[in-house]
Amino acid sequence: MATSAAGETLRIPTFEDVQRARSRIAGVAHRTPVLTSRTADAATGARLFFKAENFQRAGAFKFRGAYNAIAALQESGQKRGVVAFSSGNHAQAIAYAARLQGVAATIVMPKDAPEMKVAATRGYGADVVFYDRYTEDRAAIGAKLAAERGAALIPPFDHPDVIAGQGTAVLELIEEVGELDLIVTPLGGGGLLAGSALSARERSPGAVVIGVEPEAGNDGQQSLRNGEIVRIPVPKSIADGALTNHVGEHNFPILRREVREIATVSDAQLVETMRFFAERMKIIVEPTGCLAAAAVLQGVLPSAGQRVGVVISGGNVDLATFCALFSDIRD
Amino acid sequence: MATSAAGETLRIPTFEDVQRARSRIAGVAHRTPVLTSRTADAATGARLFFKAENFQRAGAFKFRGAYNAIAALQESGQKRGVVAFSSGNHAQAIAYAARLQGVAATIVMPKDAPEMKVAATRGYGADVVFYDRYTEDRAAIGAKLAAERGAALIPPFDHPDVIAGQGTAVLELIEEVGELDLIVTPLGGGGLLAGSALSARERSPGAVVIGVEPEAGNDGQQSLRNGEIVRIPVPKSIADGALTNHVGEHNFPILRREVREIATVSDAQLVETMRFFAERMKIIVEPTGCLAAAAVLQGVLPSAGQRVGVVISGGNVDLATFCALFSDIRD
Repeated sequence: MATSAAGETLRIPTFEDVQRARSRIAGVAHRTPVLTSRTADAATGARLFFKAENFQRAGAFKFRGAYNAIAALQESGQKRGVVAFSSGNHAQAIAYAARLQGVAATIVMPKDAPEMKVAATRGYGADVVFYDRYTEDRAAIGAKLAAERGAALIPPFDHPDVIAGQGTAVLELIEEVGELDLIVTPLGGGGLLAGSALSARERSPGAVVIGVEPEAGNDGQQSLRNGEIVRIPVPKSIADGALTNHVGEHNFPILRREVREIATVSDAQLVETMRFFAERMKIIVEPTGCLAAAAVLQGVLPSAGQRVGVVISGGNVDLATFCALFSDIRD
Repeated sequence: MATSAAGETLRIPTFEDVQRARSRIAGVAHRTPVLTSRTADAATGARLFFKAENFQRAGAFKFRGAYNAIAALQESGQKRGVVAFSSGNHAQAIAYAARLQGVAATIVMPKDAPEMKVAATRGYGADVVFYDRYTEDRAAIGAKLAAERGAALIPPFDHPDVIAGQGTAVLELIEEVGELDLIVTPLGGGGLLAGSALSARERSPGAVVIGVEPEAGNDGQQSLRNGEIVRIPVPKSIADGALTNHVGEHNFPILRREVREIATVSDAQLVETMRFFAERMKIIVEPTGCLAAAAVLQGVLPSAGQRVGVVISGGNVDLATFCALFSDIRD
């Protein structure tokens, strides 16, 4: 039985949890499309299948885990509200999923979170509380609020029902396109990567699973190499959804067991990938959402001759930010 | 029998031509997705179905008509190359469709066409010849080149096989979502609108069909009101795919018979619609591609309580242009 750093027993999720999550989100979360591109295939020599979670409800895969975690709480009789802390997409996802299930939500967000994400979170009816991501501890703030309000804290990645929910995206992908040789996902705290690995292990056992994080914050890569969770200072990258400084305790045992390696990409590579998605595939992908695709399209991960699943994790970027990224690179 | 202004007999296309076009493009053109948006439905009170031709091959619906026209020529034994004149998307479509069918293509393009469209046209292997859209007659240049090279001239809209090909998009839309109350498409020279009307008349006979053009160039609106083709100076609008100064002689008889009215939208309304598509639906749509959606989303056309088909005609806009549009509006 896995235990936390604090000695508590951890409930590490399994593929059965992913299947339960799938039942809970059925008919609520979008079964997002799988996109292909002749241009991308020609550039890599691979056959690429992009799971387009930028078209998910609330604009990112996070809706899957959020909805699943709240539904699980409801099943267990917890009906006094939820608290979440997040750099953005998890916040919106919890706010939206809570509203759909008639649950009150309080969201702890960094005060420099993208304006569009804050507005969207409030638009879903959630109460937003700000913190400074470089000086304050959001987990402590969240825990305090949850205790005060008698609500359940749903962290963005270090939670078995969140991980299980995120695993449903790759489960759908494999069901739609068949087994894959390589499955690549963005890596922040590890919820998406761990959930994806659970689905891959059961439904495409021959697939190599790889996570991609910003090179400015390669704590996941260091953790996998060191065999223990490595904590780093909060990184600075345009991938604002992956500015975590350590992977989760519920995620890490799965990553160690199932994930071959962690690759990193630069912000410039993310911008080039955003450009490719916009100009060639006509879709808006946020910087974090480009992590996996950047590693494949820019050749960080060789993929020639392989059938590759790539998770596009989200599309929540306001146009001012989106356009500023391209002008920065031009200057 | 309809005749041209020059007294020549015109072959006005029918729904049977659309069906023939569908057979010719089957397995070559993409059956593009139909997108929906809860936000758009809530804003309008309608049920909106967006036919996403920005995901078509070569980035716009134009591929349908171009491929169909070249295929028809091949069937009739014409194999000495094609010439086309176009503000952009037709050029790319002819170039791409010609390459796929092993036919040489020469494209006459305005020298101020978007850089990305010129590059893409050349990338498909076509020979590009420039002209000045404000002082020179592209039709005359195209006809001269075609005569010199013994090639067939395929105009961007005033051609029965082009019109028939464009009609396949709305045919697919109706087949996928069922009958509609209102069908709205962009209007430049009238190929898409006329083809859509042919499909609507047969497959959704109760649907009102409306075209939308830039308010800076409302020649279509004037033509429908006057009962004859009205020619205007070349308009200036960000909708660079709809800068036609008159509708086609093959299109107009269909528009008179089948189209209820022509609406117009401003450039500012196009930009707001591009923003909606990017921020809420996570897709890139070029200004021309927003014409129909702008009229519906901005309330120019009342749609509450109706099932509405909206054609998103294309997504070919380079990022520098795309981003400049938003900064112009902010200033």
